[in-house]
Amino acid sequence: MAEQLQNWVLMVTAQTPTNIAVIKYWGKRDEDLILAINDSISVTLDPAHLCTTTTVAVSPAFNQDRMWLNGKEISLSGGRYQNCLREIRARASDVEDENKGIKIAKKDWQNLHVHIVSYNNFPTAAGLASSAAGFACLVFSLAKLMNVQEDNGKLSAIARQGSGSACRSLYGGFVKWIMGKEENGSDSIAVQLVDEKHWDELVIIIAVVSSRQKETSSTSGMRDTVETSALIEHRAKEVVPKRIIHMEEAIQNRDFPTFAQLTCADSNQFHAVCMDTSPPIFYMNDTSHRVIGCVEKWNRSEGTPQVAYTFDAGPNAVLIARNRKAATLMLQRLLFHFPPNSDTDLNSYVIGDKSILKDAGIQDIKDVEALPPPPEIKDKVPAQKYKGEISYFICTRPGRGPVLLTDDSHALLNPETGLPK
Amino acid sequence: MAEQLQNWVLMVTAQTPTNIAVIKYWGKRDEDLILAINDSISVTLDPAHLCTTTTVAVSPAFNQDRMWLNGKEISLSGGRYQNCLREIRARASDVEDENKGIKIAKKDWQNLHVHIVSYNNFPTAAGLASSAAGFACLVFSLAKLMNVQEDNGKLSAIARQGSGSACRSLYGGFVKWIMGKEENGSDSIAVQLVDEKHWDELVIIIAVVSSRQKETSSTSGMRDTVETSALIEHRAKEVVPKRIIHMEEAIQNRDFPTFAQLTCADSNQFHAVCMDTSPPIFYMNDTSHRVIGCVEKWNRSEGTPQVAYTFDAGPNAVLIARNRKAATLMLQRLLFHFPPNSDTDLNSYVIGDKSILKDAGIQDIKDVEALPPPPEIKDKVPAQKYKGEISYFICTRPGRGPVLLTDDSHALLNPETGLPK
Repeated sequence: MAEQLQNWVLMVTAQTPTNIAVIKYWGKRDEDLILAINDSISVTLDPAHLCTTTTVAVSPAFNQDRMWLNGKEISLSGGRYQNCLREIRARASDVEDENKGIKIAKKDWQNLHVHIVSYNNFPTAAGLASSAAGFACLVFSLAKLMNVQEDNGKLSAIARQGSGSACRSLYGGFVKWIMGKEENGSDSIAVQLVDEKHWDELVIIIAVVSSRQKETSSTSGMRDTVETSALIEHRAKEVVPKRIIHMEEAIQNRDFPTFAQLTCADSNQFHAVCMDTSPPIFYMNDTSHRVIGCVEKWNRSEGTPQVAYTFDAGPNAVLIARNRKAATLMLQRLLFHFPPNSDTDLNSYVIGDKSILKDAGIQDIKDVEALPPPPEIKDKVPAQKYKGEISYFICTRPGRGPVLLTDDSHALLNPETGLPK
Repeated sequence: MAEQLQNWVLMVTAQTPTNIAVIKYWGKRDEDLILAINDSISVTLDPAHLCTTTTVAVSPAFNQDRMWLNGKEISLSGGRYQNCLREIRARASDVEDENKGIKIAKKDWQNLHVHIVSYNNFPTAAGLASSAAGFACLVFSLAKLMNVQEDNGKLSAIARQGSGSACRSLYGGFVKWIMGKEENGSDSIAVQLVDEKHWDELVIIIAVVSSRQKETSSTSGMRDTVETSALIEHRAKEVVPKRIIHMEEAIQNRDFPTFAQLTCADSNQFHAVCMDTSPPIFYMNDTSHRVIGCVEKWNRSEGTPQVAYTFDAGPNAVLIARNRKAATLMLQRLLFHFPPNSDTDLNSYVIGDKSILKDAGIQDIKDVEALPPPPEIKDKVPAQKYKGEISYFICTRPGRGPVLLTDDSHALLNPETGLPK
């Protein structure tokens, strides 16, 4: 009987989106607590196309905390994981599952071990803020498992200690990470500015740039910038606070021209302070520059911005189109300039919401090859093509925050063994 | 008799170096007078390898001012040429050539026309500040022809009105362009910090990057930066003044580590404010980034800088080595990572002071192919090679200021006709 009691497994599965900053977070004032030197604002991406799914489980049979990420067991000994686990455990409450006859008292959580399985539905190599979705999902799912009563804002302060930008993945729509003032980081939390329905015209296209260059990690990169850049403090203290105010207004008013101007300017300034670092950090490459050139030229020819671009700590372009029509025209331009390699299947070259491809009248590679040069480059230099410079495009949109997946079939752990399925 | 008198041609030929800024000039406070928003410091390059030669002539037979640049007649109607011509004419003095029986009174210069022929001994397409050497040589040679009594400092204020950085080419060695305070620009002049003998260990290698990308002109680029960058004012007012002081000290003390640190940081910051411009300006490309990576990695492995890098408004790298030994080791590294295309003659791939190539033990392409990977990359990722990304290398050194070429054989105008030879 005692043995039988020891064999129960209690599980929770959650899905959490990733996010992309439109006013960038770069630089910490506290490395351990992960406290930023400026506020930041992000848009949450639709988890249908980019998200992390995590199952967490507890069982008296587990003799240590264990985690599997994308099919591979990883160590939980790192400070960031330990901080999140400790903070969540400290807030655990009594849990009772009458059906299964399980009762866990608040104090028991300190002695019970967890198993965690996490999986990203997008290639981790893509450099698309997988740690943001990952830590947000870890904290969210553990909080549900342990019956933590705190709201998502409080949970965001815990996720922040795993990965700074993870705090913004606790909400859908547009989210602000308030840097806070307290030394212990208690007021350094994410708040939702508007939900994903507020500005539902927006369409997002991510160009994943083919790249074998090794990148500087965000953690060491932003530390080097704070230590060596002569411009970062001016950015954090003088430039960003004004931009945050204007960006909040632009989002509230769905003012796309202002939104686009601020988004592009802030992305460029983030890469500028990276370059002002010693040694300099180059996250964008020639392909990134070409995507920017293509967007800037088109926006200028239209007289008003159709698309905003933003780049994180890597060469991939995140393009935010004002509406579906603009996204369709953008995708045509992108496919014209960056056709896939001959052996690539169009179906794997444009992924996510493929209906935009359909709107663009493109069904196969022949349609890509037949695309005419965009009018804004006509009669000028012969249109340049950069075959193979992009690995693939992801079409998506702003999306919702974390959700629990109550259907057991989504669980990533075996309910009997508590090991990965 | 009268006709005979009308047919004389009086000529002067001069040679003027180009220069490369180690603390950068970027941004004007007056577009017409070309007044900078910060001081800058440059090193003058040896005119044996990079210079402009200009012959100016006056004759009563000339019925208009005319100019030929690199074999092609160009218009002098632009404001920059007109400003230089007007300022020099206003300072002309009496000229008498007893041998030729020529007498020109001060007041006559207003009515006499000039012919100008100018020629760069380096490819103009290389983007190596040809306008700096060009305007300096124009002003210097006209001043000699018209017997202008002002010193090179005063002449630098005139050359500045042709092209800002031209003012620094009026001197050899290390030169400071003082931005000045006066509205009329009279105190915005160049001064020599030290002559070319002061730090004669330095060796300079220029990597001319193969590039077909169209660049943003410096003039429009710096205007856009001043108008749109949120960082440029902080750079000009807060960052550069301190760097100028430290750079002057480093040059006086031949303190290479400080010199290298400041040179690299200021080049990177210049490119950072270009990127912080709307739309962003990208002068460096992936090849530029790779050269920086190669230098940074080697400097780090040596524990102290061996080579400084600096990039102007284009992708070309200017590498300043602490001495001949460092230059030799640098050239080996550069040739290892950036071998020429198979059909390239080594003799046209490394030009200028070829003795450095000899020191490196490289006599032909086979020696380039046989170069071992630099020790600092051994046992790490397989050494990457980027064939054909560099057009050629120029080996040179700090050099002297402008000189008159008194030997008539150097003249670029026919002494009888006053037309290009």
